Amino acid sequence: MSEFRAGSVAQVSYLDELVDAGLLTRTGVHGVYARGGAFEHVRLAFDSLVTRAAAAETPEPLYFPPILPREQLETSGYLGSFPHLAGTVFGFEGDEQAASDQLELATRHEDWSGFQHMTDMVLAPAACYPLYPAAAKRGPLPEGGLTLDTGDAFVFRREPSTDPARMQIFHMREIVRIGDRETVLAWRGEWRSRAEELLRSLELELELDVASDPFFGRVGRLLAAQQRDQELKWELLAPVAGDKPTAIASSNYHQDHFGLTYDLKTADGEPAHTGCMAFGEERVTLALFSAHGLDVNEWPSSVREKLELR
Amino acid sequence: MSEFRAGSVAQVSYLDELVDAGLLTRTGVHGVYARGGAFEHVRLAFDSLVTRAAAAETPEPLYFPPILPREQLETSGYLGSFPHLAGTVFGFEGDEQAASDQLELATRHEDWSGFQHMTDMVLAPAACYPLYPAAAKRGPLPEGGLTLDTGDAFVFRREPSTDPARMQIFHMREIVRIGDRETVLAWRGEWRSRAEELLRSLELELELDVASDPFFGRVGRLLAAQQRDQELKWELLAPVAGDKPTAIASSNYHQDHFGLTYDLKTADGEPAHTGCMAFGEERVTLALFSAHGLDVNEWPSSVREKLELR
Repeated sequence: MSEFRAGSVAQVSYLDELVDAGLLTRTGVHGVYARGGAFEHVRLAFDSLVTRAAAAETPEPLYFPPILPREQLETSGYLGSFPHLAGTVFGFEGDEQAASDQLELATRHEDWSGFQHMTDMVLAPAACYPLYPAAAKRGPLPEGGLTLDTGDAFVFRREPSTDPARMQIFHMREIVRIGDRETVLAWRGEWRSRAEELLRSLELELELDVASDPFFGRVGRLLAAQQRDQELKWELLAPVAGDKPTAIASSNYHQDHFGLTYDLKTADGEPAHTGCMAFGEERVTLALFSAHGLDVNEWPSSVREKLELR
Repeated sequence: MSEFRAGSVAQVSYLDELVDAGLLTRTGVHGVYARGGAFEHVRLAFDSLVTRAAAAETPEPLYFPPILPREQLETSGYLGSFPHLAGTVFGFEGDEQAASDQLELATRHEDWSGFQHMTDMVLAPAACYPLYPAAAKRGPLPEGGLTLDTGDAFVFRREPSTDPARMQIFHMREIVRIGDRETVLAWRGEWRSRAEELLRSLELELELDVASDPFFGRVGRLLAAQQRDQELKWELLAPVAGDKPTAIASSNYHQDHFGLTYDLKTADGEPAHTGCMAFGEERVTLALFSAHGLDVNEWPSSVREKLELR
């Protein structure tokens, strides 16, 4: 069940300010906004900063759209961990009479779901998900493994809220490492300091924390505890609105989960390990506007230079 | 009913070439591909070219995500004209037992649609759709109306095919004019020559044609004929694969349809007229690779310069 999460007073008031300033425009659905020119300018400037930070490892660009084959969601285990966050794509099946009946109900804003049937597509819940089966299809990994770049991919999480940092559809930029255990762990350690440095250079008040994903139900609480114990996820948090900081970047180490799931093997024929470094681009942008004010022209010149804002 | 449309021999063979060259990567669902680095580089270069072509009219950026409020689809009339192309977003409702039952079915790739319920969201079928209600919410238009820019928005059309030019999810860039009838018609005339010039400068073999949208059913055939008779839509077509050229850009004049639908009024209190100039960015990119070869470095220097490809 995807419940509405009301934002705090500070969060709702920040959202109002963003809308009044034309940085975001409401659509009528909580957590779905249009981005204004200044917001997008900053988001893309941050995206380019990530590109520059990752350039030394020459990741291969593999840019997936927000639609994922349903079969991959079924195979990945996502529905066990996060059934409440998934979005599936349905479409019309029927003849002209059915289309006419559907239209009549829809025009009256009544229930027309009976005419809609599950397709072979779902919404992508994370930018890196489609990369693992795509990599597996190429056969065993090259020596040294692979480093991939998702670009600024749209992802969907069904969690309506009036907290502007909790969007249902947003851009996630991920750099993904696929290889043997040692390679992935070493890479993850490097990105831990690199990501922290990158976000600190934007003069955000940062906290680093071991974290867990919002797993569903009672079993989920056990999975979350296990994830924390093994330090499989860490997050970088920054103030957006209110007292509690918001996670704006995170890194997951999946061990050999995707390696086993998709039969993705290293050059030595072992199940591959995978890790990812993810930036929530809208959240970073919200943290920047929160830290430096709603007018980009008034931001500290050091931050503007770092982002190459013109 | 959304039927699979097999691509022609030439189309399927062009898709194979694109995949072999790493320009596109298959996902397992027809018409859903990942874009490789070189493909994306060209797509974004073309997107910037449109930005430069539109700069003189300083359109206001209003960048919507690929999710649209369901209510807007119900109100817009889209389900009357294109029920077969629409995608709706469903999500899980239920307790832990239901989640566990759903997971069991999904893991076996059996039917788990019974656990999914219609949400208040659908997939955006066109980049300009959310702009009209957003503009209406601001009240009457300013004198002279509004010019808006959708950015490179993802849109969804449920039409699986092995023709690479027929994607189910792709980027549509639209410039949108909202105002009185004369303003919109004059603007549309200007863009007709501007768009043609812009695409010709990329050395594409262009055709301009009066066109119609793929309306559904028997009534749809009448609507299509009417649209042609009144010249409400024109398209620019270029070769992609095979003998028949593909529409890569189009312009629609909606008369006062959206003005009346969303109570969107001119400064004089009349229902606003609207028109849009749309570029199918993946199709333009496919036409460019088809015309100039799969290696961007070998393209004519005139085309590279026009696109500012480095």
